[in-house]
Amino acid sequence: MNFVSGNRAAERVEPAPGIVFDHATLGQRILFGTGRAAENVLTAVRSLGATRVLLIAGASSSSLAASITDTVPVVWRIRDVVQHVPADNAATAVSAAREARADLVVALGGGSAVGLAKIIARDTGLPIVAVPTTFAGSEATDVWGITENGRKSTGVDSRVLPRVVVYDAALSSTLPAQLVVASGMNAIAHAVDGFWAPRADPINIALGTEGLRALVPGLKALAVRSEETEARERTLYGSYLAAAAFASAGSGMHHKICHALGGSFNLPHAEMHSVVIGHVAAFNAASAPDAANRISSALGADSPGQGLFALGRELGTPRSLHELGFQEADIPAAAEIILPTIPVSNPRPVSKSDLEGLLRAAWEGTDPA
Amino acid sequence: MNFVSGNRAAERVEPAPGIVFDHATLGQRILFGTGRAAENVLTAVRSLGATRVLLIAGASSSSLAASITDTVPVVWRIRDVVQHVPADNAATAVSAAREARADLVVALGGGSAVGLAKIIARDTGLPIVAVPTTFAGSEATDVWGITENGRKSTGVDSRVLPRVVVYDAALSSTLPAQLVVASGMNAIAHAVDGFWAPRADPINIALGTEGLRALVPGLKALAVRSEETEARERTLYGSYLAAAAFASAGSGMHHKICHALGGSFNLPHAEMHSVVIGHVAAFNAASAPDAANRISSALGADSPGQGLFALGRELGTPRSLHELGFQEADIPAAAEIILPTIPVSNPRPVSKSDLEGLLRAAWEGTDPA
Repeated sequence: MNFVSGNRAAERVEPAPGIVFDHATLGQRILFGTGRAAENVLTAVRSLGATRVLLIAGASSSSLAASITDTVPVVWRIRDVVQHVPADNAATAVSAAREARADLVVALGGGSAVGLAKIIARDTGLPIVAVPTTFAGSEATDVWGITENGRKSTGVDSRVLPRVVVYDAALSSTLPAQLVVASGMNAIAHAVDGFWAPRADPINIALGTEGLRALVPGLKALAVRSEETEARERTLYGSYLAAAAFASAGSGMHHKICHALGGSFNLPHAEMHSVVIGHVAAFNAASAPDAANRISSALGADSPGQGLFALGRELGTPRSLHELGFQEADIPAAAEIILPTIPVSNPRPVSKSDLEGLLRAAWEGTDPA
Repeated sequence: MNFVSGNRAAERVEPAPGIVFDHATLGQRILFGTGRAAENVLTAVRSLGATRVLLIAGASSSSLAASITDTVPVVWRIRDVVQHVPADNAATAVSAAREARADLVVALGGGSAVGLAKIIARDTGLPIVAVPTTFAGSEATDVWGITENGRKSTGVDSRVLPRVVVYDAALSSTLPAQLVVASGMNAIAHAVDGFWAPRADPINIALGTEGLRALVPGLKALAVRSEETEARERTLYGSYLAAAAFASAGSGMHHKICHALGGSFNLPHAEMHSVVIGHVAAFNAASAPDAANRISSALGADSPGQGLFALGRELGTPRSLHELGFQEADIPAAAEIILPTIPVSNPRPVSKSDLEGLLRAAWEGTDPA
């Protein structure tokens, strides 16, 4: 238990007498079933007593949206779904919700559709029913984000947590195989990084562990047989568990690195996670033996770094920041930006040269083991 | 995943295409820290904006109650805490809450204190802060119970779920060692029976698994060094996880058997669980391989039945229904009462003669392996 108490001791800057934590379990209903999205959305709408639904679904999801909301009282439909929730789009959506006198938002899609629904919920108090088509996990969190003048700001608000999540493994079958595995590695990063995040505790560690235990075999099977329902289902509920763990534990070292690389060097989100997570896990492993053991065990590997690297190779995700367009010359500047954002809870102290070494290994794509 | 889908298929009486579930995560804040109960109760009271607290704490907890509510605005104190929440006591408590114009109930104690608070919450809508001193787990559920004319009735109501739970491992150090291990085996039964309960799903199975992984080493250490803080902490958060899993998954075969034995033959609650759980686990094991594997692995045993029996022996809990005063001649009558209550979700079909065999083995106290 030194791992957990160590975290909290570092955060509170006082001697820790043992296990100490403050855990918020977010109340949410999860309706899970392949081929049942239409039925379950209707159940959710009825359970919330809604009669005027605002539907958010990108233009590419038109036929899917029509098929699962056939019997739902939709009064307005938003098709303009943009990554990172631009403030203009959000303002239009909030106005639409008010003008349509909606009493519920149903969001079908990935993180962007759910993210837009969250701004509506934040500003109007309307409940959300989320119907995810990727493994991004936004549906399990009470965190909203909005982008204005190129800057993304985020916040926490209990009103933005979707009241009901409808999971249907058939919905992701329209995604390209490469997006499926990249999104899945992103989910794995939620679980792994949660183990040493600032609010890691025995409850969210339990969720993250089980998330990994479902995601690893699920993704491995999907890499070979991308249409297998059982593999999609495991990946889907594994990604939910990982997101719930991450929402509770907060961002660890890995997410701080990726946030900086994405924000300042414009690297692609999901692919970057695939490359970086193994290096962070290898860096922290010796200082976080309980977490290392959970990660290695879920991966069937000798060490977290080796296991995550091998998984990425098996799934065919990118192996180096080099491939993603990151410049070697930018390593010192990136390390400078990242250093002050590393949580004090990180189990191993981090110096600028540690970060440069880690970024160099990630840039080269060497096996972190 | 056949275990889960098998459950739901049985319950829904339709072909199951895969993993199907409807999971309600109950929103709750958990403040955990040894020696921090007073500080954390105050945090909870403030976070709920309460200024008039009704305190429930049995007469034996007087000094403990005084020490942890020193700085809390208590306007009324209920000392009359009785097992199974008699309706008369409950009515008096509800009146007291109204007359005192309380805006919060703080319940310190085991299942009975929290149970009384729940009736107040059910009837008045007041929020509850629970401060458990045992491993009974009532604080993690939205289930209330009340006893009138010798009959216990129960129900589910979101208002009775405590809004904040304050866990402090030091609080249980006043309990007799035998009560600690019996209460701990009760917690283990929550986790184990949840694996094949009617609403078992990957989320509550994750919580139950981690509950077992904390409870087993925690209780083993407590059996030898009853004052060890780390062991008490692991047992305490393990019992929370097990209770959260059980609240979500519902009562399985084991709890139906114990409910009948307790209600109709008046056997002692916690001790009965210690005796029966191993036999139920042995009965279901071959039909629930995933659950069996999780239980065996947490126990470090070859089989669930053998592992649970050995754990009970190590902890010194009773081994037979015979010791608890159950009569061999009552076995057929008990089986008759139990049979119609067994959930259709049970992974192995159950006949009356199966139940008679199980009860006979439990009566004799033979090793179920």
